[in-house]
Amino acid sequence: MDLATSGGEPERFGPTIGTLGEDALVSGVIDRYPSAPWLTVGPGDDAAVLDLTGSLAGPLIACTDTIVEGQDFLRHWSTARDIGIKVAAQNFADVAAMGGRPHTLLVSLTTPADVPAGWANSLADGLAAECSRAGAVVAGGDVSSGAEIAVTGTALGTLAVPRAVLRSGARPGDLIAVTPGSGRSAAGWALLRAGLRDVEDPVLAALVREHRAPVPPYPAGVEAALAGASAMIDTSDGLVRDALRVARASGAVLDLDPDALRPSADLLRAASVLGSAAGSEPEPDPRDWVLTGGEDHALLACFPPSAVVPAAFGVIGRVRSGEPGVWLGGRPFTGEGGWRHWS
Amino acid sequence: MDLATSGGEPERFGPTIGTLGEDALVSGVIDRYPSAPWLTVGPGDDAAVLDLTGSLAGPLIACTDTIVEGQDFLRHWSTARDIGIKVAAQNFADVAAMGGRPHTLLVSLTTPADVPAGWANSLADGLAAECSRAGAVVAGGDVSSGAEIAVTGTALGTLAVPRAVLRSGARPGDLIAVTPGSGRSAAGWALLRAGLRDVEDPVLAALVREHRAPVPPYPAGVEAALAGASAMIDTSDGLVRDALRVARASGAVLDLDPDALRPSADLLRAASVLGSAAGSEPEPDPRDWVLTGGEDHALLACFPPSAVVPAAFGVIGRVRSGEPGVWLGGRPFTGEGGWRHWS
Repeated sequence: MDLATSGGEPERFGPTIGTLGEDALVSGVIDRYPSAPWLTVGPGDDAAVLDLTGSLAGPLIACTDTIVEGQDFLRHWSTARDIGIKVAAQNFADVAAMGGRPHTLLVSLTTPADVPAGWANSLADGLAAECSRAGAVVAGGDVSSGAEIAVTGTALGTLAVPRAVLRSGARPGDLIAVTPGSGRSAAGWALLRAGLRDVEDPVLAALVREHRAPVPPYPAGVEAALAGASAMIDTSDGLVRDALRVARASGAVLDLDPDALRPSADLLRAASVLGSAAGSEPEPDPRDWVLTGGEDHALLACFPPSAVVPAAFGVIGRVRSGEPGVWLGGRPFTGEGGWRHWS
Repeated sequence: MDLATSGGEPERFGPTIGTLGEDALVSGVIDRYPSAPWLTVGPGDDAAVLDLTGSLAGPLIACTDTIVEGQDFLRHWSTARDIGIKVAAQNFADVAAMGGRPHTLLVSLTTPADVPAGWANSLADGLAAECSRAGAVVAGGDVSSGAEIAVTGTALGTLAVPRAVLRSGARPGDLIAVTPGSGRSAAGWALLRAGLRDVEDPVLAALVREHRAPVPPYPAGVEAALAGASAMIDTSDGLVRDALRVARASGAVLDLDPDALRPSADLLRAASVLGSAAGSEPEPDPRDWVLTGGEDHALLACFPPSAVVPAAFGVIGRVRSGEPGVWLGGRPFTGEGGWRHWS
């Protein structure tokens, strides 16, 4: 990674985490996190203490998600700041997918001793940046030694409606809608894999950037809940695979409209560039990115026919009765895909 | 590991996590977790939803802690159930050390594909067992693939007093007190390292058991807070090293009384057995276990002179003014020790 790619962050310089030691590493990282009015006791003690009153009162939402080097990111593809954004984003997206507002993040970092301390500082900067975008704060964390880098986030949020929006509430007749961006992360990944890491084309560069550091539409989750969404999920593992989870939990068919899922011009352009790249594999089908690409963290929601679908969502199909599954254009979807661990 | 050691758990049998796959693994694990009245939405959706009203209302305490194979546990020394107990216990101990009652745990498991699914199920049983002992519940989690096993817990609890008990509140004149058990985990570790894994002597077996699966005294944290403790910490990294954290945060000297820290008969017996074991190293000094052994998860607290120290604690010294540090018997402690990552 060159400094241009890493945004000039001093990730590669200075002492390693091992030579710096746990206490110095932790106090250096903590200094990078802003505070917030609800953070009565922040990082540095045995635990954090949160004052969740006023606008933060209400049912508490909690979830946890880990990213592992080699599985979920590569250090030569992503800066530490990207990785911090990614772990915060995928946790906050899960809070949003219940109809909640994320407000707090805890982070546990496992890392080998030879990682530069500057890398951990840049990770903290990415966590802080995504917390800032989401209106949240880093409340605490942990560091451990291990053979590979893994970062676990735990997000807390407040439910913005009386009842959480579950995966199980879709009913026949409901509209299926999704926030924009499905397939963009997969396209960015394909560009990276083809070696087009520092591509100058701004359209392609945006795809690469969104793969490295997703941009979930957090407020759309609350908007969907307030609009009466019957079911919702964060499409972290790909549109079809996550739609299948809603279908199974709801006992219904999610029938997607292929016309509404046409790849955007950005995806078509990425596929074309990849297809014409010397030594490349056959030109990829951007419809695969849309249907089975993971890590977009778009929100898929179902709405009763009477609901006004929020502007942040586009309708992509309708819920039908039948053997639970995902259909495409009125027929069962038989394609494979979507992210699976250990495969 | 033989079945007698593993308590007859089917950890080694059946399909691996990789062949079972993520969805089946998760649904099998979820079935092992009991529910609780405050768990409005439990594991299985994008996030959990908690109703923290009634006796669970109040400031929220949150912390996270990871254990990594090879660093914090060995699969041939500890059962999956032990490891589940350990990750829950060390997180809940941090909640207790603020003066809180733990009520909720989230868990993220990173694991290679070749680990038997039964191992993950036994891990869940250990998590559920320690949650039950603490009055808590597993609300959700995550699974990821990785090269080594790592388990991250995030504990949530409710503060039982108006203000959390921090590390920074110790004042000259305060009494220093600790719950029993310092050194027991280190003694158990020394016995395991000497190959005395399946020792029949019940005293030594208890030390080994407590190393594998610590038993933090959760209610003592609330008792200390209610008694007016000025500072408190979970002694996860060893008595002296954690006392030093209190000393530095408080700007004071923690002067420990060596007479109050004499090794128990159990520790003397373990040292004697290890010293006489064929091929062993020189007989260990059990005072080292007491002062620098980690992972006991005893609670160290400071109390103003006027406070009534709860029965769960024994007084081991007094806070003095001076350059922040730990003293032993009126003189600066110069010994090394205590758990450090990357050393």
